[in-house]
Amino acid sequence: MKKIAVLTSGGDAPGMNAAIRAVVRKAIYEGLDVVGVEHGYQGILEERFQPMTLGSVGDIIQRGGTMLYSARYPQFKEDDVQQQAIANLKKHGIDGLVVIGGDGSYRGAMSLTEKGFPCVGIPGTIDNDIPGTEYTIGFDTALNTVMYSIDRIRDTATSHENSFIVEVMGRDAGDLALWAGVAAGAEAVIIPEVDFNIDRLIQRLTKSSMRGKKHSIMIVAEGVMSGHELAKQLKEKAQIETRVSVLGHMQRGGSPTARDRVLASRFGGRAVELLIEGKSGVAVGIRNHLLVDYQLSEAYEGKHEADISLYALTEQLSI
Amino acid sequence: MKKIAVLTSGGDAPGMNAAIRAVVRKAIYEGLDVVGVEHGYQGILEERFQPMTLGSVGDIIQRGGTMLYSARYPQFKEDDVQQQAIANLKKHGIDGLVVIGGDGSYRGAMSLTEKGFPCVGIPGTIDNDIPGTEYTIGFDTALNTVMYSIDRIRDTATSHENSFIVEVMGRDAGDLALWAGVAAGAEAVIIPEVDFNIDRLIQRLTKSSMRGKKHSIMIVAEGVMSGHELAKQLKEKAQIETRVSVLGHMQRGGSPTARDRVLASRFGGRAVELLIEGKSGVAVGIRNHLLVDYQLSEAYEGKHEADISLYALTEQLSI
Amino acid sequence: MKKIAVLTSGGDAPGMNAAIRAVVRKAIYEGLDVVGVEHGYQGILEERFQPMTLGSVGDIIQRGGTMLYSARYPQFKEDDVQQQAIANLKKHGIDGLVVIGGDGSYRGAMSLTEKGFPCVGIPGTIDNDIPGTEYTIGFDTALNTVMYSIDRIRDTATSHENSFIVEVMGRDAGDLALWAGVAAGAEAVIIPEVDFNIDRLIQRLTKSSMRGKKHSIMIVAEGVMSGHELAKQLKEKAQIETRVSVLGHMQRGGSPTARDRVLASRFGGRAVELLIEGKSGVAVGIRNHLLVDYQLSEAYEGKHEADISLYALTEQLSI
Amino acid sequence: MKKIAVLTSGGDAPGMNAAIRAVVRKAIYEGLDVVGVEHGYQGILEERFQPMTLGSVGDIIQRGGTMLYSARYPQFKEDDVQQQAIANLKKHGIDGLVVIGGDGSYRGAMSLTEKGFPCVGIPGTIDNDIPGTEYTIGFDTALNTVMYSIDRIRDTATSHENSFIVEVMGRDAGDLALWAGVAAGAEAVIIPEVDFNIDRLIQRLTKSSMRGKKHSIMIVAEGVMSGHELAKQLKEKAQIETRVSVLGHMQRGGSPTARDRVLASRFGGRAVELLIEGKSGVAVGIRNHLLVDYQLSEAYEGKHEADISLYALTEQLSI
Repeated sequence: MKKIAVLTSGGDAPGMNAAIRAVVRKAIYEGLDVVGVEHGYQGILEERFQPMTLGSVGDIIQRGGTMLYSARYPQFKEDDVQQQAIANLKKHGIDGLVVIGGDGSYRGAMSLTEKGFPCVGIPGTIDNDIPGTEYTIGFDTALNTVMYSIDRIRDTATSHENSFIVEVMGRDAGDLALWAGVAAGAEAVIIPEVDFNIDRLIQRLTKSSMRGKKHSIMIVAEGVMSGHELAKQLKEKAQIETRVSVLGHMQRGGSPTARDRVLASRFGGRAVELLIEGKSGVAVGIRNHLLVDYQLSEAYEGKHEADISLYALTEQLSI
Repeated sequence: MKKIAVLTSGGDAPGMNAAIRAVVRKAIYEGLDVVGVEHGYQGILEERFQPMTLGSVGDIIQRGGTMLYSARYPQFKEDDVQQQAIANLKKHGIDGLVVIGGDGSYRGAMSLTEKGFPCVGIPGTIDNDIPGTEYTIGFDTALNTVMYSIDRIRDTATSHENSFIVEVMGRDAGDLALWAGVAAGAEAVIIPEVDFNIDRLIQRLTKSSMRGKKHSIMIVAEGVMSGHELAKQLKEKAQIETRVSVLGHMQRGGSPTARDRVLASRFGGRAVELLIEGKSGVAVGIRNHLLVDYQLSEAYEGKHEADISLYALTEQLSI
Repeated sequence: MKKIAVLTSGGDAPGMNAAIRAVVRKAIYEGLDVVGVEHGYQGILEERFQPMTLGSVGDIIQRGGTMLYSARYPQFKEDDVQQQAIANLKKHGIDGLVVIGGDGSYRGAMSLTEKGFPCVGIPGTIDNDIPGTEYTIGFDTALNTVMYSIDRIRDTATSHENSFIVEVMGRDAGDLALWAGVAAGAEAVIIPEVDFNIDRLIQRLTKSSMRGKKHSIMIVAEGVMSGHELAKQLKEKAQIETRVSVLGHMQRGGSPTARDRVLASRFGGRAVELLIEGKSGVAVGIRNHLLVDYQLSEAYEGKHEADISLYALTEQLSI
Repeated sequence: MKKIAVLTSGGDAPGMNAAIRAVVRKAIYEGLDVVGVEHGYQGILEERFQPMTLGSVGDIIQRGGTMLYSARYPQFKEDDVQQQAIANLKKHGIDGLVVIGGDGSYRGAMSLTEKGFPCVGIPGTIDNDIPGTEYTIGFDTALNTVMYSIDRIRDTATSHENSFIVEVMGRDAGDLALWAGVAAGAEAVIIPEVDFNIDRLIQRLTKSSMRGKKHSIMIVAEGVMSGHELAKQLKEKAQIETRVSVLGHMQRGGSPTARDRVLASRFGGRAVELLIEGKSGVAVGIRNHLLVDYQLSEAYEGKHEADISLYALTEQLSI
């Protein structure tokens, strides 16, 4: 291993820059050359390689987004596209590749590895939905962004005694909604992992209101239904008036939190070590505070489990 | 003047608590008794008066929302409701009233004054749309909330080279959108004060894109059209793809900025002085850094002017 | 168990309010009465008990500090003071006590338990230095406060190409400095767990400077030496000019992060369960994401281990 | 005027990047070429000129510090150094210069102008101490940084009922301390503009304590005395125990607030207009919300006046 490349792929997440920085600096520390690929897998095809130095990644650890840009590139599933990618990488003297992204991005990395080009994956997504690792880069930042936004909404909810529905990201995984529910003291959380029952929700809200509660905050993961849909159901079924706030893309940005920067730094350093050790086709992850590595396929074939104990906790603490 | 009351009315705004604190402490400093009325004008009718001490307003200067709660109360337009309000205030020995709210709230205060009960208004609304004062309490905080949210969205916009439409509050006034446009470096701002021309916008975006710009941020005040409507028009007319973010109620909350706390403190102190000086039916305001007072009716009959020079500035700096 | 009490003791930490809220709500959820004791152990002696309702802990999850106040109370080591405390607690019908604080506070809780009054401890301190639990309430918030402060300092360091020493809290434990070192991309970290060698530091700074680095940030835990002392040594030994920033008490305050609120909520709920289950003389903790409980004495007799792997990581990534 | 240059000089301030961006974009908008000079006046001597494009200033409006670096360069007072600077500027085809900095930096700009090279000044300093303009770039951001830091300290002060002294920047001007005093609800403010009387302060603290206040926050501008010196005096003269927090360099950094970005954008645009209009030897400023320009010498010979009415307000509201 003399020269490696790094790219970011899929939805961007805060902390990706910290991971890029760690890959670059660790590589240089280990005596490797390192190049950044712009615009994800597409950039390999377009040969958008830029040599990275210590200076290239100075002053980026604190920045949201990704300095290498990201993109989705569905064509990368095709065999000849992958062959061309490997040809391009080799042409530039590159021996290994670090891919930072979600489990979708891991498929491409696995295919390249199977075709003989060593890849290592780093989990980067705010959804925290990658099997095999307890946390992904970006989750902690997005969680805090969601929580502090709900704190703001609560100021208004309390002052006007209104109820609010807050729609947060999470197509398949409820982690963001679940953790934000506990952290922001929400009255109810609606996530893909728990069957939704409108009657039970109405019952809880009614009880809560009889107990004197003047306002409530409900958090709904976009994967279950939209905030506006939930508002409609509450209105039609029980004449409960709510206001809806869709947090939107703001959840993806911002300066990463300490946890995300530390996680990204550890992942980045370990990915380089793995390539040097000759391990490939693996993803790095964290379990019980220890760095682990495991087959990339485990990530996209496996199933992520949310910490469902938080669901009961929200219900008990929001009585 | 021996005893005064203070209430908040209409939409809540960050800094209202700082204004309440200033009214209470200045009143006590001047030897007056002071009570807080909960839930705005409605609270007068329901006699929700609570005596305020120095301690009542301790540790609230930094909090969003309003500790006295707020409400809209359309019935307050009626003559007999106003008479009853005055009766209730007098019953509790109250000689004067400070109303913190928007220009809608000023009408009630004017009516009470005309019926013989002295009132003073303090402008509190994030919209900055009250004629007669250059700034209102809450505007600066909301502006920063909007701007930092757009900073987050820009992280994603830049990483993915997508264009975004951000819908911000402002039914009749474009101040929030206008200032945020300059502060967040937006490519376009759409406000009630300037006729909207979709062709001109498309032309600018196209030019900008030919100059090499890969993404852009457009800010639209809700009073002109919704963000989704704008996205639809851009798509239909010019095949321009955009993502939409509706910032929503989050804009109303949060810990007030320094400007809002200082403004609120100055307004609160001055309102008490005016009541003591025997001036009523007036609102406090700020012009050229000096506190002024003027007829409440000027506020709800007048017209607020946005600083339209910022519009041209946005266009020049976002080339 | 019919009625329990909760208090905060020792240095305050962000998230203590979230823990109080969880204790109160979980207790009410379980059908118990609950009172808050003001000013820590001293408040037991002075019978400063206030009944807590669902409403008492409304709108506090997001607040720094502790609504029950905290205090150090060295006299609580004495036998008769402890006897009097138990008498007071019993007089008010209290059957169990939850103590939120550092390991110093745990000694008092252990003594009461040994004298027959059931206590459970919750680890609350920004230092993260309590043996038996991987994290304490307040650490994550303080870490982010430190990190974002260093981000600000770096703006100036970069603009002026100056080097800075930042002194952070941590008398016996280097966790704050260590994590902040990775998260803020510091060039060097000086902590109690690793022997300090001024010559080695000077060597690293010199190398770094020869490699073209124009500025550097060093983080020193107050337990090793003061920032000013370090600056003096660098100046005297190697004519290296630095500026010093002592972050100070600001590190203790602020709205808790999501991690701290979730941790505090889980700890609070579990502490009540333990009392109900008849377990006492124990502390709650978290290990590998699971809640655990263990003898209070393990905490104050044991030794906290910092994750020293982060030390090497900082050195590798700041080359 | 075909080609202009821009530099930052003296202490860095948040918003300097927004001003650089505005100068560059406005210049390009007006058809001018524009170069950035690195490291202030020293950079002119060292011919550190870099051509600026629209892209050079993309994504910097939100960043603290200055992308052009800053430096103090005392030698620039000398006649032959100034001659050489002009020679260098002309050699690179530069016709005009925008200097962003404090009043010290204005002297250099005035000298160049007097020697025939047109310069315009933009006030950039967190101290807000430049005569002729009501606000300087960076003041609003620093003010909010100070205020939110004091909010954090207050969490601890309240929880432990301790009193704190907070030392803030401000050698000759008390603006930061004064505004922060009102905004953070401080009990006392000590500034260069008002004679300090330790006995009067002790009297106020004693009264306050007798009225039941358990803690207080005092803000001292570094120009009057250090926080530690004040603590010593309070302890020696009246046995008043306080803790001291020196906010330090953190005050200079951070992402600029909306006000600072808008102000910087307006100043930057106007500076370019002035050069085009053939006006030089002037500084831009803001008075009563309008952009003004005035002789640079007025700035460094004049005297800045703080809004001393805030001093009385702090005293009245902190009873």
